[in-house]
Amino acid sequence: MLALEEAVECLLHHTRSITETERIPLLTSTDRILAAPLSAMADQPPFPRSPLDGYAVRGQDTEGAKKDFPKRLKVIGAVYAGEVFCGTVKEGEAVRITTGAPVPEGADTVIRQEDTDYGREEVEIYRASFPYENYCRQGEDYRKGDVLFEGGMRMDGIGIALAAGLGKEFVEVYRKPKVAVISTGDELVQPGIPLQPGKIYDTNRHLISGRLLDFGITPFASLHGRDDAEEMAETLLELSGKADLIVTTGGVSVGEKDIMHQVLPLLSAEKLFWRVEVKPGAPTLAAVLGSTLLICLSGNPFAAAANFELLVRPVLGKITGDKRLEVKRHRAVMANDFIKPKGTRRFLRGYAEDGKVWASAGNHASGTLSAMAGSNCLIEIAKEQAGAGKGDEVWVYLR
Amino acid sequence: MLALEEAVECLLHHTRSITETERIPLLTSTDRILAAPLSAMADQPPFPRSPLDGYAVRGQDTEGAKKDFPKRLKVIGAVYAGEVFCGTVKEGEAVRITTGAPVPEGADTVIRQEDTDYGREEVEIYRASFPYENYCRQGEDYRKGDVLFEGGMRMDGIGIALAAGLGKEFVEVYRKPKVAVISTGDELVQPGIPLQPGKIYDTNRHLISGRLLDFGITPFASLHGRDDAEEMAETLLELSGKADLIVTTGGVSVGEKDIMHQVLPLLSAEKLFWRVEVKPGAPTLAAVLGSTLLICLSGNPFAAAANFELLVRPVLGKITGDKRLEVKRHRAVMANDFIKPKGTRRFLRGYAEDGKVWASAGNHASGTLSAMAGSNCLIEIAKEQAGAGKGDEVWVYLR
Repeated sequence: MLALEEAVECLLHHTRSITETERIPLLTSTDRILAAPLSAMADQPPFPRSPLDGYAVRGQDTEGAKKDFPKRLKVIGAVYAGEVFCGTVKEGEAVRITTGAPVPEGADTVIRQEDTDYGREEVEIYRASFPYENYCRQGEDYRKGDVLFEGGMRMDGIGIALAAGLGKEFVEVYRKPKVAVISTGDELVQPGIPLQPGKIYDTNRHLISGRLLDFGITPFASLHGRDDAEEMAETLLELSGKADLIVTTGGVSVGEKDIMHQVLPLLSAEKLFWRVEVKPGAPTLAAVLGSTLLICLSGNPFAAAANFELLVRPVLGKITGDKRLEVKRHRAVMANDFIKPKGTRRFLRGYAEDGKVWASAGNHASGTLSAMAGSNCLIEIAKEQAGAGKGDEVWVYLR
Repeated sequence: MLALEEAVECLLHHTRSITETERIPLLTSTDRILAAPLSAMADQPPFPRSPLDGYAVRGQDTEGAKKDFPKRLKVIGAVYAGEVFCGTVKEGEAVRITTGAPVPEGADTVIRQEDTDYGREEVEIYRASFPYENYCRQGEDYRKGDVLFEGGMRMDGIGIALAAGLGKEFVEVYRKPKVAVISTGDELVQPGIPLQPGKIYDTNRHLISGRLLDFGITPFASLHGRDDAEEMAETLLELSGKADLIVTTGGVSVGEKDIMHQVLPLLSAEKLFWRVEVKPGAPTLAAVLGSTLLICLSGNPFAAAANFELLVRPVLGKITGDKRLEVKRHRAVMANDFIKPKGTRRFLRGYAEDGKVWASAGNHASGTLSAMAGSNCLIEIAKEQAGAGKGDEVWVYLR
């Protein structure tokens, strides 16, 4: 029986991070992990740029300009955003300019059009400007070679905008993880099929698949298997070497229908551990099948849910490099009481907000589902404690 | 010129929430908004269930049982999870049972197999059990008619698991929002195309599209338009009535190339407002085109980014009903100084963590992009203040 931390360490030791990359269109890169940094291939802005609509001038030519003592300059042309003015602004001259247009050679500032008479041949300037006062310098946002977004970062709207600014139509990202989900148990029926006596609906396959989807991971396979060791061995053999990770639920306890114990020898799989010192979900089993890690969770729905967060999530974090998947463990103060016997390290459903945490009302049995709605974390109650009272500090693991 | 709150109120007044629904496969429902509550059509568990592997018995028959004074019971059959035992457990009888199997009629508790001799014809019971001690009652998780997930909630892995438990293969959700994005400006070049002098890459189209993708909204259209009022009017006409919302960037200031002002009369659009008392992004323009709301953001990248959060996000929240899109406004303590002139309500890029907030280092000009990397919020500095100093309380708007 391993401590939780030992089990996580063992799993991570046998987890291979994705190294294969692919080039994908920029607007499909949301939530993907960048394989290479986004670095500037040119200065931004790539040229000195006007920050407003007005007249590009030499600042010294506007010295002392006032509404009742305007400076008069000759308008030698116009430049709109997207164009270039092919001339030089000399003493006493101005060029009509719009926001975002390159400031012509010779000019060093822009006079806001509201501070002029909007002249076309000649313009009256009503307000002085220092050189470089209204002037975006080339490279003031970033310089050629600057790294804007580090490799390993998760792409989002800001990352997409920055990459677009660098002119990147495609970005290099790590490939998606391949995670297979298999629920086991003859009692499980798939949603949509009428329930016969003694049967229940297959929540675990949906829970594990649904949590993967929460992290943007579409399951590589999402299957249900019968309580048949040979059939299960065949399915696992088919997936091993293809999937990065296989997560199963059920069949790991000590009963005769707990088939996963029979499956591993059939596959000559390397067993890593069986049983972790946590409640719920102690009988968790882990193994390596060729290059594929296999984590077999207990079939009790909350046990599967809790150990997905505690054991599977860190593995997904290492496989993908996605920092969202790192365990979010914080101290919080209990807002109500929970009593448990000493001797087991217990994880409860809870709701955490603003440093406080409430143990979910109702049934904490590992078979119950309903207490998961409205819960956003696990609360840990240490082995040596007989519960936690209002005001006690506990560890919470945020979902 | 409207205050920010007036502008938001005006936009929300003209925003229509999606009412159309669709039935979609359960495992595709991640991030979709439930149109109807998930209610239990049957008790869960649907029958009294065994919580462990062992023997189903009448508790009173085990009274006083000990290792050295076992009770002997007759094994009248076996029931595995997924099956039903068609008989009744009478005095002195036991049924072999596995975890999750229905507890047979007559039995009221289950003896753990480790507390027996694993007998097949007869079994020795080494430990007493009270009636209902090891026994999951029918409906102990939830009862027929209970609401597990309210309508209007966003589906996630837990919602998917709960719906599966109810036997739902499909769920009823609101249709996806249709949001069109158009960047305008002759100076803009799409990523992947070499940059000619005077041109810059089109970050705004990618920024707005990318932020929509962050919220799981695939843009209905993501276009770039030239500075041509008639062409733009045609594009908008094409999208109006199809899209719920059109967001444009650029062309809203006071220059002759600020075409959006000419576009609205061409379309006989109802102008809602022009100019909002915020910096950056004051010249934001809003209108209604038939049944479609049009929000025209400033073309400065940070102005577009900030006003997407301040103005567009609440509108998306009302359109979709997605509570993630509600503005997340909190008080936080400045961890560094920022100086600004009085007289404008200013929004800065910042990084908030644990109640503290840092104004991003570097350039706060509204044209700069690089300061957006690593920022996770906007900091608000009130109109009447000349900045905020370390230790001052400010409002932050989390991304």
